[in-house]
Amino acid sequence: MTQPDPVLAPGLITRQVGPDNLETPFSALSGELTSPGAHYVRSHFPVPVLDAETFTLSVAGRVAHPLQLSLGDLQAMPAQTRRITMECAGNNRVYLPQKARGVQWELGGVSTADWTGVSLAAVLERAGVQPGALEVVLQGADRGEMTDPLPSGGEIHYARSLPLTLDLEDVLLAYEMNGAALPPQHGYPLRAIVPGWYGMAAVKWLNRLEVIDRPYGGYFQTVDYARWEGRGDLPPERVPLSAMHLKAQIARPAPREVVSLGRPYRVTGAAWCGQGTPQTVEVSIDGGQTWQPGRWTTPAQTAVWRLWELDWTPEQAGPHELLARAVSSEGEMQPAHHDPGRGSYEITHPIAISIVVSGADAAQENP
Amino acid sequence: MTQPDPVLAPGLITRQVGPDNLETPFSALSGELTSPGAHYVRSHFPVPVLDAETFTLSVAGRVAHPLQLSLGDLQAMPAQTRRITMECAGNNRVYLPQKARGVQWELGGVSTADWTGVSLAAVLERAGVQPGALEVVLQGADRGEMTDPLPSGGEIHYARSLPLTLDLEDVLLAYEMNGAALPPQHGYPLRAIVPGWYGMAAVKWLNRLEVIDRPYGGYFQTVDYARWEGRGDLPPERVPLSAMHLKAQIARPAPREVVSLGRPYRVTGAAWCGQGTPQTVEVSIDGGQTWQPGRWTTPAQTAVWRLWELDWTPEQAGPHELLARAVSSEGEMQPAHHDPGRGSYEITHPIAISIVVSGADAAQENP
Repeated sequence: MTQPDPVLAPGLITRQVGPDNLETPFSALSGELTSPGAHYVRSHFPVPVLDAETFTLSVAGRVAHPLQLSLGDLQAMPAQTRRITMECAGNNRVYLPQKARGVQWELGGVSTADWTGVSLAAVLERAGVQPGALEVVLQGADRGEMTDPLPSGGEIHYARSLPLTLDLEDVLLAYEMNGAALPPQHGYPLRAIVPGWYGMAAVKWLNRLEVIDRPYGGYFQTVDYARWEGRGDLPPERVPLSAMHLKAQIARPAPREVVSLGRPYRVTGAAWCGQGTPQTVEVSIDGGQTWQPGRWTTPAQTAVWRLWELDWTPEQAGPHELLARAVSSEGEMQPAHHDPGRGSYEITHPIAISIVVSGADAAQENP
Repeated sequence: MTQPDPVLAPGLITRQVGPDNLETPFSALSGELTSPGAHYVRSHFPVPVLDAETFTLSVAGRVAHPLQLSLGDLQAMPAQTRRITMECAGNNRVYLPQKARGVQWELGGVSTADWTGVSLAAVLERAGVQPGALEVVLQGADRGEMTDPLPSGGEIHYARSLPLTLDLEDVLLAYEMNGAALPPQHGYPLRAIVPGWYGMAAVKWLNRLEVIDRPYGGYFQTVDYARWEGRGDLPPERVPLSAMHLKAQIARPAPREVVSLGRPYRVTGAAWCGQGTPQTVEVSIDGGQTWQPGRWTTPAQTAVWRLWELDWTPEQAGPHELLARAVSSEGEMQPAHHDPGRGSYEITHPIAISIVVSGADAAQENP
């Protein structure tokens, strides 16, 4: 099977071309699942041309049995299917109080799909991880040079590591998305899926695993996809991003939407987190002065967003700011403001959606 | 003793103001020692105002006896004086083939001074380093926010770590420079001196040591003062800069100097390295086509530059490119070209000094 054509739904928002970075229109949220064509796309380099017939995944490093696995080898192993909400760590960047470099995601750097594949634990078990091993590096076939904010010093592959202490039974090496072969823009023919982690861990075009005995210090976990973490009194240290933080987001009304005075309106949205599940959600229609509880419309599931709604009848014309905030089963709350140590990532303070309530329609109904 | 006034020699080249970054005019090189006023200055934040009377150095972290040492306490310990050549890791940056961000050092981000102080080993011995300790972080009193190339996420202190495997008997906590109290711009009242390492390790205004059990990941050893190091087949990893690499540099002629046809001219310069000592030096006056051995005029000393000269009588008018290159006692050679993995640091390929040989003067001598 040679590389299929990309399937892209109309309505995706172009944030960058070549490499393509495409955003899901979040206001179209209507169910748990996003179609593969509508799933947001985050690319660092051009899509590599790969052929599933000749494709191999190498497993090397501190393992007893280095492996070369074909796609057939992987498909012959026990398969799992998992529904996973994936969010780009830079989602909502356009709303940062200080303009930050990077892809200017608005609300739709987040999507949900069903992924089918073999567990990373099973593959590493076949290879036999040796004592002293600390991390596994996942490397994609995509490559190029990074220049901003720091030069990568030449061409590099996209690569991210996972600590071996993570539950690797949960991590998939996926060859299907929503029941069909992966589209090229989503990593055909093989992609890592790391439940509960930001999307940077979901390495696309995955063709190499290397087990190492140190914390990996590559570009995409030191310069990119890293933040400052304070430990004691010393200046903060650079640490790789990992699990998603709790966030509730409003799908409708969309930013700048005009809604009608006196007419019932259903406010909708989703909430998600990397650890635990969203437990309560609250919505404010007055810029954060008062809050009302939202109603969940889907069950709590690990690593999957949970949809919510609130019925609202606008009673006052003019501009409104809507916000949403959640609390997780782990007691996690969203911060009131963005922490500068997170840089242009992990943007989880409630985003104010500015809309207008128009009295015109209501007036027409009451002539 | 309150903070003295800065002493600055005329002729320093201003590379940046507020914080001050000042370059030594390298063409003035005339002996091993640079005067404190002429020593290059590298600052990241404004000079903190410190008073030697009330100053304390804290020693904390994984130590048996946390300490608060006054300057008097340190001066009561056995003192050492060492002659040290210090070079900014970004020296020669203005000559990079691709324009790089940062202070645009030409040739004079390098100087030599006599530093007097107590060994870091002695101080740590008093504190009692505990088992499992890996590094010691040296923190300065200077602080501010970094924004380029990456935001530091708020105000930070300047801080760098040293591995405890380094010979810490050799590392000085210096309170005197060339026999007098440190000038404010060189770290009054206390500065670390790390022989053989680039200047970023010579933490100024040093008032805190913290022993830790991990590799330190602060701003100045991940974003700044770090490079890409390849290990095996994975994309390169970010590692902190450490020891100086071998370099030979031409002091005279200076760039764009005009020298006279047929008149004897003494080409001079220096060579230095972090490990071993410079052993041979060669000079080319024809852009690298042919090389002649230079003559050392000072002895080989660890961590001190070694001066050299070459007598040359220009035999052809017109533009010339002069280069110098050295070999160290460890067999280290300078690379022909800058390694992109080094980024805007460790620039040690031979720099071509462009000059002009003028026939005018020689013609006047032979009327």
